[in-house]
Amino acid sequence: MNLRPLAAASALACAFAVLAAPAHAHNHAAAAGGGARVVSTAITEAEVLAAQRAWGDALVAIATAHEREGAAAARRLAEQVIDAAYGYQFGAVLFKPTLTVAPQTFRTTRAGALAYFVGGDPNFPNDSGFALNGWRSVAIQNAAIFIAGDVASTMGNVTLTDRNGRATTVDKTWKFKKDDHGRLRIVVHHSSLPHAPR
Amino acid sequence: MNLRPLAAASALACAFAVLAAPAHAHNHAAAAGGGARVVSTAITEAEVLAAQRAWGDALVAIATAHEREGAAAARRLAEQVIDAAYGYQFGAVLFKPTLTVAPQTFRTTRAGALAYFVGGDPNFPNDSGFALNGWRSVAIQNAAIFIAGDVASTMGNVTLTDRNGRATTVDKTWKFKKDDHGRLRIVVHHSSLPHAPR
Amino acid sequence: MNLRPLAAASALACAFAVLAAPAHAHNHAAAAGGGARVVSTAITEAEVLAAQRAWGDALVAIATAHEREGAAAARRLAEQVIDAAYGYQFGAVLFKPTLTVAPQTFRTTRAGALAYFVGGDPNFPNDSGFALNGWRSVAIQNAAIFIAGDVASTMGNVTLTDRNGRATTVDKTWKFKKDDHGRLRIVVHHSSLPHAPR
Amino acid sequence: MNLRPLAAASALACAFAVLAAPAHAHNHAAAAGGGARVVSTAITEAEVLAAQRAWGDALVAIATAHEREGAAAARRLAEQVIDAAYGYQFGAVLFKPTLTVAPQTFRTTRAGALAYFVGGDPNFPNDSGFALNGWRSVAIQNAAIFIAGDVASTMGNVTLTDRNGRATTVDKTWKFKKDDHGRLRIVVHHSSLPHAPR
Repeated sequence: MNLRPLAAASALACAFAVLAAPAHAHNHAAAAGGGARVVSTAITEAEVLAAQRAWGDALVAIATAHEREGAAAARRLAEQVIDAAYGYQFGAVLFKPTLTVAPQTFRTTRAGALAYFVGGDPNFPNDSGFALNGWRSVAIQNAAIFIAGDVASTMGNVTLTDRNGRATTVDKTWKFKKDDHGRLRIVVHHSSLPHAPR
Repeated sequence: MNLRPLAAASALACAFAVLAAPAHAHNHAAAAGGGARVVSTAITEAEVLAAQRAWGDALVAIATAHEREGAAAARRLAEQVIDAAYGYQFGAVLFKPTLTVAPQTFRTTRAGALAYFVGGDPNFPNDSGFALNGWRSVAIQNAAIFIAGDVASTMGNVTLTDRNGRATTVDKTWKFKKDDHGRLRIVVHHSSLPHAPR
Repeated sequence: MNLRPLAAASALACAFAVLAAPAHAHNHAAAAGGGARVVSTAITEAEVLAAQRAWGDALVAIATAHEREGAAAARRLAEQVIDAAYGYQFGAVLFKPTLTVAPQTFRTTRAGALAYFVGGDPNFPNDSGFALNGWRSVAIQNAAIFIAGDVASTMGNVTLTDRNGRATTVDKTWKFKKDDHGRLRIVVHHSSLPHAPR
Repeated sequence: MNLRPLAAASALACAFAVLAAPAHAHNHAAAAGGGARVVSTAITEAEVLAAQRAWGDALVAIATAHEREGAAAARRLAEQVIDAAYGYQFGAVLFKPTLTVAPQTFRTTRAGALAYFVGGDPNFPNDSGFALNGWRSVAIQNAAIFIAGDVASTMGNVTLTDRNGRATTVDKTWKFKKDDHGRLRIVVHHSSLPHAPR
């Protein structure tokens, strides 16, 4: 069976559906606030966990699109993921991917993030496309979460498993910010391989 | 039966117990974050409603202490309430009480708030002590609540009923900020009598 | 001389130009952060004062458009002002205008705000259009400002002067929130006539 | 010359003096807000850079105290630094030091941080004391800074140089939160050696 681009896009839409919950849900306070309209930009733990899962699902979706649809489809999907899940439109994202090296370690621009995920950008010659490595599943184990109002940081291990069953575990820090539409966006992302003492 | 000061203080402690929930409760995330420690400074709707009720209970407690224990006890209690429920230690509170007039309309200092609640301060000669008017109950009807991360604003009607059953309804706006200990503190308080067109 | 609608709109654009400064200005840190890109959603005192002035200028612009262009032009301008300067798109605004009465005291919806400013809405039969009263100038005297990160509250007196030189002073509380584009939007607005003891 | 413990403590006090600026400085707005009291919990870029420098100065101070005063003095100083500059009192800090390994990679508790800096804790047997490596200077090169109201994140390179002139550069992410007293505290700290492709 062959997934068509539309299907791949649908998978992505599904992965990010969880991020689409509007910030201005109209809750109804029972006791003192019967009927009061409630707007909240505060982030809940459930929203944080959903945003993490959406990132993992998106990575797998890009890898899958690459295998089934080719490089162009993977690139389109990666662009959608970056535009939906990262906060480059705020002006910059503090992104230190796992495998980048100086002088291009930090990818504060959208172009730098896209190059890391799918490669093919002559301005980032060391990038071969991290998302194209046949990822099949992503497991997240948080050590701690710090929610500071409308931003939330997480730190812990993320384990990526490829189609050959090979697992890679990284130490990862994310910070999410809730945007005006109630969606969590990644504004800080620091990923590193575990320290290996000699 | 006569409530002693200690009992009055206990009533107050009870009224504010709800505010004492620490911000750094150690929740345990089940799904993705099994065992993750979660710190949150975000404010929930339930915390907002509890802080409003605590304000009402405190007003009744001051009125009651005044009748049963006298002016000194009421003053001590009012100081405790201000120190526990307002944010004067942040540098200023934006407080426009219901009945103040120019040039002392705005009570941005602790002394101005205390004078408004219990009077007796020669620097605020128009203040006779709003909290000493025999209040017996406080009902809060929110029109809307806006939670912006670690601060939350409410707007609506507050109806105060005194020992003779006479009710006074005011239009009231509050803004609460969660402090480092997880307690909500009033940093904005604008109260006004309903507009009476001639 | 007669101002055409376009000119009135230009006046408004001018009034709000100050709000259009993007949040993601790329500052350049000298010392430790040479060349670092800086994104900030924090609000400065200068931004607060500019947003207050823009509100006053907009009120005068609506009054002026009404006199020169008529009701329809004033209404169009009021809609632009509400959409540019208030935060109804977040889900609700906590708005208690100076002259509203129960059961329509609180204008948590855009329609309620528009009716207050320009009248003409059968759903708000008591509204005659507050912005249409010939306002010529607005002076703001803050008692205190509380900036809590990306939201900021102000409290103080606002004095409106009409074309006959008659001044009206109100007690006013605003809360502004910086949106994703770096503009301050009013999310709380409580205005009341000074208390008049009998 | 021999620095006594008191002198070392003074050096630390100096290093952190920059953090002691109260949040509730009473600014005086000139234009519209003449005389208005201004409270702000927003973080400025200058405060971020100062907090980073204070961290570097503190690391050097601990290393110096260790050489001149011994292990006990270094430990006391490290405790003061952690209590003054980190946010463990909020409930947890998301701290991934440069050299830790599983299953003790993440140091979400004060004890785990202290063990990393000065070692000597049987519960953290792999820790030999990172701060005791003869550090003489710390240089910080930010790639980007994201200030989200009363929290601020930085990402970039930090270069530590020891008494033999040997430099170590790490990729580092910090998140600072302004506490109720106006001091920036580290609530996220992810440090990693640069990726070394084989």
